[in-house]
Amino acid sequence: MNQSTTYAVILAGGSGTRFWPASRKSLPKQLLPLGPAAPQTLLRSTVERLKGVTCKENLLVATGAHLVGATRQELSDIPERNFLVEPLAKNTAPCIAWAALEVAAKSPEGVLCVLPSDQHAADPEAMEAALQQALLVAGTGRLCTIGIVPHRPETGYGYIQKSAQPLPIDSKPSSSDGSAAPSQKTQAFSVERFVEKPDLERAKEYLQTGEFLWNAGIFVFRAKDMLEAIARHAPELFASLMRLEAARSSGQLPPDAIQRYFDDVEPISIDYAVMEKQSDLAVVPADFGWSDLGSWESAWELSPKDARGNASPQGTVLVEAENNLVVDLREGNSESAEVASKKKVIALVGVEDLCVVETDDALLVMPRSRSQDVREVVATLKSSERSEFI
Amino acid sequence: MNQSTTYAVILAGGSGTRFWPASRKSLPKQLLPLGPAAPQTLLRSTVERLKGVTCKENLLVATGAHLVGATRQELSDIPERNFLVEPLAKNTAPCIAWAALEVAAKSPEGVLCVLPSDQHAADPEAMEAALQQALLVAGTGRLCTIGIVPHRPETGYGYIQKSAQPLPIDSKPSSSDGSAAPSQKTQAFSVERFVEKPDLERAKEYLQTGEFLWNAGIFVFRAKDMLEAIARHAPELFASLMRLEAARSSGQLPPDAIQRYFDDVEPISIDYAVMEKQSDLAVVPADFGWSDLGSWESAWELSPKDARGNASPQGTVLVEAENNLVVDLREGNSESAEVASKKKVIALVGVEDLCVVETDDALLVMPRSRSQDVREVVATLKSSERSEFI
Repeated sequence: MNQSTTYAVILAGGSGTRFWPASRKSLPKQLLPLGPAAPQTLLRSTVERLKGVTCKENLLVATGAHLVGATRQELSDIPERNFLVEPLAKNTAPCIAWAALEVAAKSPEGVLCVLPSDQHAADPEAMEAALQQALLVAGTGRLCTIGIVPHRPETGYGYIQKSAQPLPIDSKPSSSDGSAAPSQKTQAFSVERFVEKPDLERAKEYLQTGEFLWNAGIFVFRAKDMLEAIARHAPELFASLMRLEAARSSGQLPPDAIQRYFDDVEPISIDYAVMEKQSDLAVVPADFGWSDLGSWESAWELSPKDARGNASPQGTVLVEAENNLVVDLREGNSESAEVASKKKVIALVGVEDLCVVETDDALLVMPRSRSQDVREVVATLKSSERSEFI
Repeated sequence: MNQSTTYAVILAGGSGTRFWPASRKSLPKQLLPLGPAAPQTLLRSTVERLKGVTCKENLLVATGAHLVGATRQELSDIPERNFLVEPLAKNTAPCIAWAALEVAAKSPEGVLCVLPSDQHAADPEAMEAALQQALLVAGTGRLCTIGIVPHRPETGYGYIQKSAQPLPIDSKPSSSDGSAAPSQKTQAFSVERFVEKPDLERAKEYLQTGEFLWNAGIFVFRAKDMLEAIARHAPELFASLMRLEAARSSGQLPPDAIQRYFDDVEPISIDYAVMEKQSDLAVVPADFGWSDLGSWESAWELSPKDARGNASPQGTVLVEAENNLVVDLREGNSESAEVASKKKVIALVGVEDLCVVETDDALLVMPRSRSQDVREVVATLKSSERSEFI
């Protein structure tokens, strides 16, 4: 696998409310310094993890029009032409299709790794090994996904059932640049089926069988194979895509053609539009300390903590406080904890298991266990016409 | 009792740590908008309650040099010459002695009501009635104090034991301005003794006997009687005071003489220096919803609350939150809740009995029940050389 034909596509659009008040319409989760690598943003961490997979020239970043400024600023080392700016949010399929089109235009044999921009991987080397294996599989013409080996009966994720036997694929990569070969344990399987979020009983069964993996939304495929699959499973999307391609001039897609494309297409995920309909889909099981970082609770779980379980910025005054998460995202608080500590002090006395998040214009206090209920705050602000806070 | 001979002295010096992060060295409790009259400061509320007792011309405000700017600003309707500025904090006796000296210089028969500036009175009319009664008693030549009728076995206050029989004093005031006469129930007693903060068992006994009252630090006396008492019980203080008086020129005490006086005198409370040694001390029992507002807990108790027991600024987002105190003292947050709500939103989700206090440079989160432990935060900040926060 030559690096020059490997592309990465980082999906950095969308917006979420689960990290309010940190996450906002104009500052989504991937642009926040969450998790153990903080104050590095999740987006930056995602880019760093792809160093061994492809070069910056081949790293595409798909993002929304309202986010492009902040996203480019965060990834100022990525060439401007590599940003795919979605004028409208239409879920993942239209965007991934566009990315495949762009890669196909440059390199017909080009392979794409598509990854969310807001996840965590505790073991980047194991992740890279899984991606390398998936690149090998994709090189044989199959669409491939990475499936996360579950360690608990999680009911919050979709699952992928893999075949009992691995696919007969040569596990020795034809790396031309001496990048690490995937470990011998890394294998690929056929995807038997995708499964929606299960109830707890079913999730326990899944865990026991050893045949089920979490769907992390990481896909690897050759551009031409994805285009073929879209043509087969999503002909309307493909037709729009061909109209888009027809507008290409001097190698570039004109903005008005991109706008028309996004006006035309239906919003649909790549899972529904293509993956779940594809018969020869492959999956590479992987175990690299993956987390979707779905809530403040998981942010606490991943963060470095003191001896009493508090994850808090240096300078926080903690008096008999245990297992709390303190996040201080006020602007002007430098990355240097010393400078930050001079700007504002946060003191917790005698509290346990709390989540305290402070931004310039909002403060959230709740038990960590109530992390899912942040959406109620956002709903309240929306209904009381205080949308400046969301 | 003619108003022209009645003076009030509000003790507005000192500093406390119990309301950190709201209270600071340069912003003590009396300058904070605490309690039910918020956003009015406690100092302003204290002044308002004295309207029926004396006029602004006769209202003296004793404060520290570091506080005089903020205090004058808060009481811009009080003449500048009425501020007694203590160059050094020497407890209450030197300051009250000075106030008595000033009043004696203006009006030998002048009577002083000395009151702390940071207390709460739910029933100002009852308080005024008690002060009027005390003014009558003081007019007979006795030093008098107001004793608060206890409703619980409080261990945090000093007590005053009163005589079983009331003093034979005419309860009809010779008011010359038609101000309200004290209620017939208001009586005066001899003080049997002062008692230090008791343990719980003793406090329960005190409550049962009906003979014990809380010492609220409110004193009423003629200037000349206080000067005599100081001469008798605190001769060194009296000597310093006489040197101060000797420096008076054109009716004014020169600043360097005041400085010398405060350099000379020992720090001591008026209770220790005079009151506890005085044999014919009188006490007027009173029940006017008094509170010393000694902690965030008592601030919550006194504040207006919603149906779920939350005392919080308008605009606070409360999702299944109960019995919390939220205080937002950030500068620029106007008194108008509407304006404040646009500036910053505070959201509490699923928390109970918490105290959340926000200022421009600090945030405190603790259970209300831990209010006493705020001092530990201040101690931590002090020891870590972050005194800019205290």
